[in-house]
Amino acid sequence: MSVAIEFWFDFASPYARISAARIEGLTRGKPLTLSWRPFLIGPLLAKRPGQASPFQNAPSAQARYRRRDVERLCLDEGLPLVWPSTYPRGSLLATRVAIIGTGQGWCPVFARAVFEANFAADRDIAAEPVVSEILTRLGLPAEALIAEAGSEPVKQRLKDAVAEAERRGLFGTPSFLVGEELFWGNDRLEQAIVWATSYPRAS
Amino acid sequence: MSVAIEFWFDFASPYARISAARIEGLTRGKPLTLSWRPFLIGPLLAKRPGQASPFQNAPSAQARYRRRDVERLCLDEGLPLVWPSTYPRGSLLATRVAIIGTGQGWCPVFARAVFEANFAADRDIAAEPVVSEILTRLGLPAEALIAEAGSEPVKQRLKDAVAEAERRGLFGTPSFLVGEELFWGNDRLEQAIVWATSYPRAS
Repeated sequence: MSVAIEFWFDFASPYARISAARIEGLTRGKPLTLSWRPFLIGPLLAKRPGQASPFQNAPSAQARYRRRDVERLCLDEGLPLVWPSTYPRGSLLATRVAIIGTGQGWCPVFARAVFEANFAADRDIAAEPVVSEILTRLGLPAEALIAEAGSEPVKQRLKDAVAEAERRGLFGTPSFLVGEELFWGNDRLEQAIVWATSYPRAS
Repeated sequence: MSVAIEFWFDFASPYARISAARIEGLTRGKPLTLSWRPFLIGPLLAKRPGQASPFQNAPSAQARYRRRDVERLCLDEGLPLVWPSTYPRGSLLATRVAIIGTGQGWCPVFARAVFEANFAADRDIAAEPVVSEILTRLGLPAEALIAEAGSEPVKQRLKDAVAEAERRGLFGTPSFLVGEELFWGNDRLEQAIVWATSYPRAS
């Protein structure tokens, strides 16, 4: 029996980027079906005034700490890190493209490339030429996909994903769902996998 | 060479309680000097409107999640959990007593007993009889210590601890300091220990 684990991510999140780099290795060979679920956390954060991304807030001890925390985690994981010169980067276009990819098998490879562009190369992933370049590099039809990303059906699929995230209790990114059991944060990835592989009856 | 690691905790925090149950086992046998640093997080949270403890906020997806998260972590650690019927519990008296204990060697055993009273037995640790009972059970002079906890020198020591926490960049509990390298959250306890034992020159 294969248990489903869903990886919900927003391209603006450095913690989601770390999970994106880890999740395939951690789930490989396990009786798990991994789904990459691109969405936008912004619309959910906007409903919680005063609780927006800590990275967006005025400089504070916590904001300084979080950058340091991400630096240390990337160091531990062997991931290059160049802090995005604009933060958070707009992830709308890349997320719509990723939504198309979920139906065509190339979402994971595209998502990892977008995360690396944002957090290892300081590229502006909100810009169409950058997304186009990534798609081309992956051998995907960039022009057609970017046009499709602006179509109503794809826009609606992203809106539906955000509504689903809210309905299922998500409030941050990355999040992992095993059935309706929610795990929030890169820190909980291992726990979610243990849950999915060991506790399927308990959930 | 023994590296110092400081464990900063507030008795109201369920995550600090989990760290208190884990830290001695994780540091034992390592070239580390562990200091238990009782303090109050409230005065620091009060300076960040809208960013108070997520447990204090109105019911939200995140608040519900955090209770579930604590439940799962306690399950994983084999720690009993009875959610405090009042939350957060006032930790002023117990913290002042713990401050006395830091100079007399019994802070860790007292602190663990207070955490268990709060989170495993739903006792009101803000109440003097409860603190008194814990001290007596540990063979400590309860009456004298509670009187001393109300003295100006002890009050001042706690104020100094809170000021030190703020000066050194703390914004949550539990926190761990290795020199001035800050680690926040029970999730970062292992990382702090690795840092202290492997990266002493890098810090």
